[in-house]
Amino acid sequence: MHFVIIGGDAAGMSAASRSKRNHPDLEVTVLEKTMDVSYSACGMPYNIADPARDIEELVVRRAEVFREKQGIDLLTGHLVEGILPAEKKVVGTTSEGQPFSFPYDKLLIASGASPVIPDIPGTDLPGVTALKSLADGRKIKQYIEENQVRRVVVVGMGYIALEMSEAFRALDLDVTMLKPNPNLLPWLEPSLAQVVQEELESHSLELMFGQKLKAVEAYSGGLRAVCDDATIGTDMVLIAMGVHPNSAIAGEAGLELSVGNSLAVDRKLQTSDSHIYAAGDCADAIHVVSQAKVWVPLALRANRAGWAVADNVCGREMELPGIAGTAVFKVFDLEIARTGLCMHEAVAAGFDPVGVTIKTRSKAHAHPGNTTIYVHMVGDPKSGRLLGAQMVGREGVAHRINAPAVALHAQMTVSAFGESDLAYAPPFGPTWDPLL
Amino acid sequence: MHFVIIGGDAAGMSAASRSKRNHPDLEVTVLEKTMDVSYSACGMPYNIADPARDIEELVVRRAEVFREKQGIDLLTGHLVEGILPAEKKVVGTTSEGQPFSFPYDKLLIASGASPVIPDIPGTDLPGVTALKSLADGRKIKQYIEENQVRRVVVVGMGYIALEMSEAFRALDLDVTMLKPNPNLLPWLEPSLAQVVQEELESHSLELMFGQKLKAVEAYSGGLRAVCDDATIGTDMVLIAMGVHPNSAIAGEAGLELSVGNSLAVDRKLQTSDSHIYAAGDCADAIHVVSQAKVWVPLALRANRAGWAVADNVCGREMELPGIAGTAVFKVFDLEIARTGLCMHEAVAAGFDPVGVTIKTRSKAHAHPGNTTIYVHMVGDPKSGRLLGAQMVGREGVAHRINAPAVALHAQMTVSAFGESDLAYAPPFGPTWDPLL
Repeated sequence: MHFVIIGGDAAGMSAASRSKRNHPDLEVTVLEKTMDVSYSACGMPYNIADPARDIEELVVRRAEVFREKQGIDLLTGHLVEGILPAEKKVVGTTSEGQPFSFPYDKLLIASGASPVIPDIPGTDLPGVTALKSLADGRKIKQYIEENQVRRVVVVGMGYIALEMSEAFRALDLDVTMLKPNPNLLPWLEPSLAQVVQEELESHSLELMFGQKLKAVEAYSGGLRAVCDDATIGTDMVLIAMGVHPNSAIAGEAGLELSVGNSLAVDRKLQTSDSHIYAAGDCADAIHVVSQAKVWVPLALRANRAGWAVADNVCGREMELPGIAGTAVFKVFDLEIARTGLCMHEAVAAGFDPVGVTIKTRSKAHAHPGNTTIYVHMVGDPKSGRLLGAQMVGREGVAHRINAPAVALHAQMTVSAFGESDLAYAPPFGPTWDPLL
Repeated sequence: MHFVIIGGDAAGMSAASRSKRNHPDLEVTVLEKTMDVSYSACGMPYNIADPARDIEELVVRRAEVFREKQGIDLLTGHLVEGILPAEKKVVGTTSEGQPFSFPYDKLLIASGASPVIPDIPGTDLPGVTALKSLADGRKIKQYIEENQVRRVVVVGMGYIALEMSEAFRALDLDVTMLKPNPNLLPWLEPSLAQVVQEELESHSLELMFGQKLKAVEAYSGGLRAVCDDATIGTDMVLIAMGVHPNSAIAGEAGLELSVGNSLAVDRKLQTSDSHIYAAGDCADAIHVVSQAKVWVPLALRANRAGWAVADNVCGREMELPGIAGTAVFKVFDLEIARTGLCMHEAVAAGFDPVGVTIKTRSKAHAHPGNTTIYVHMVGDPKSGRLLGAQMVGREGVAHRINAPAVALHAQMTVSAFGESDLAYAPPFGPTWDPLL
């Protein structure tokens, strides 16, 4: 049997490795458009922050290891341009301009997501870039090294924008962030978002809300970012406005699309064609709280979905439960975490939710080094169910979010969650854990 | 209605405060044998470690606040010596030698636990002490300050013994720990216990296993701890061999006793007498995994049980679920956490368990500052249920234990838990969380 995989990142390589482990005589071909496979994309902001670190450190496993040790036919520089479900075949062109064609018995689309680039003049100027691939990371690092970069404009204020702004500040660059929307992190409860905003401002980030980028122009040996009400001189522009799923060829092949143009998959990760699976940042998922289809491109899900596809391809039936949308990121000294639905998502999902915000401490009474933890929880008064949780604090946030995440999977009520026997010791929290 | 409470610590004061909040006209009397109420007992080792800190900082709320602001009749120096269930009355003697007697409609026994003191010669010598009450903490701090203490023998190797040994090392004292049993932390998986042992030894603690204390003797201006095979010269002896529930007067009153002589209570915290409740370190609980009665004296449960008693006394019916035995402590740079059953507890509870131990990292691939996290999980192959988890590591352990704790409350299977959508970001863990 021939198992063909489009995309050699988290989902694709997880599926390739596991299917070979499951069935060593399976023929597995991975078609990756870039020259890079299996690297820690999420680690890029931290690497860029430190000029002494080589970006190639982020490579987890080199292509040769997959080829030689694992017997995977891994082809880099192979851009797939068409899927022909009737003929069970994919076609495309290599980076050297050679056409190729591969027949498949089972196909996995793990084509990932691409940064949203606005359709405005100047995004192709040198010094204007997004951050998604390792090639982007190399380019940013090299550009900063080789040019006299002192100023950066970051377009967007999502978690990649924030992590990169921290990296740029670590390199002592002046950073201006802009977004059209008036709110920082709209999914975060406003009083928690305020804490994050104060942290950003205390690290000398200039935040410009209500500013939509209209153009980037070459100007006086550098660049300028042109908005409606402002023009900002800069040496570099990072576009971090989010990502969109790479689903165009799948759509053209007639596969069913879903939320935000992601590929619709069932619990077995099967698309509307039973020979074709999709996994990773290009595929949708079911939310465990709302039971609705959602598109949340995150690394753990990509890995897990890759494994599940491998099992299904190998005849071990595997269904994935939904996702809870659990996520965490760090910006300067703050940890910011969420799981489940925020208030407006809960309303959109048809609940009549109640939200509670508390302010508590990261350590026991009178323990040195206490800091504030802000907790916001969302519940459904009708059923009593816990719907979501968010936290912001200087410590003890990142791993704490996993307890309500598990509670969401278990469909726990707020009261049952509140009766959970959680750990206590003075260095780690008050007797009543912040979550209780 | 007259609600009488024996004991003014976590469970007792939680019950007193909440019952007054529920019903401001309830008559609430608290009888506390010492002069201290409402202090952070768990914070004592950290306070003792720092000569600059006043131990009175640990007082959370002074007796006058309870009396004046909350209208609780809080009587310190009141030792209860007898419960007369037929007459619904308690009797005792004050610290000034005055007999007293109080009738009750509802009684809460929150008499706590006392340190186990071995029946050997010399435990009454100056410099020999246990650590349970704030008075003990004051005594230790004062003894170190006023005497030329250079050496301490710590009898026992449980978490209080370990926290106190760290405190003594912070004061630059030579510490020898001894215990009769050959294993450090017998509930911890041996390879994890080995990691803890290496940490203790790297901080110059002398560990003597297989040594039972036979006597403490005054010797050459100091003390000596006499064991079968060794005699250790010292300036101080800390007895940290665990605690036993203060249930003697309850037993004499004919109330049913349970595991380890704790007071048997139902889910409403009611003892075998329907007018008498028990909560805190003197009462038993049901384990959510084994459904068996257990006695695990920990602070969160004490607070929670105090609240539940207050609700039941006030006619708001409140049943507590079981406990998962979730606990965490820090010793030097290690965090050690557990929830649920360990292998031998699972066997004793009638399971035929399987244990798995893994070694993973605290941060993502190539992220600076990575340390090792050891995870041990116990499952029941027959039902697939998760039975327990333990972790040891330098970071990311304390709050992570709460996710499996919630899973135990939800009776999750190992596989459902493994499919949970947990948070990921490079500074906080690998893509697959250590628990997955």
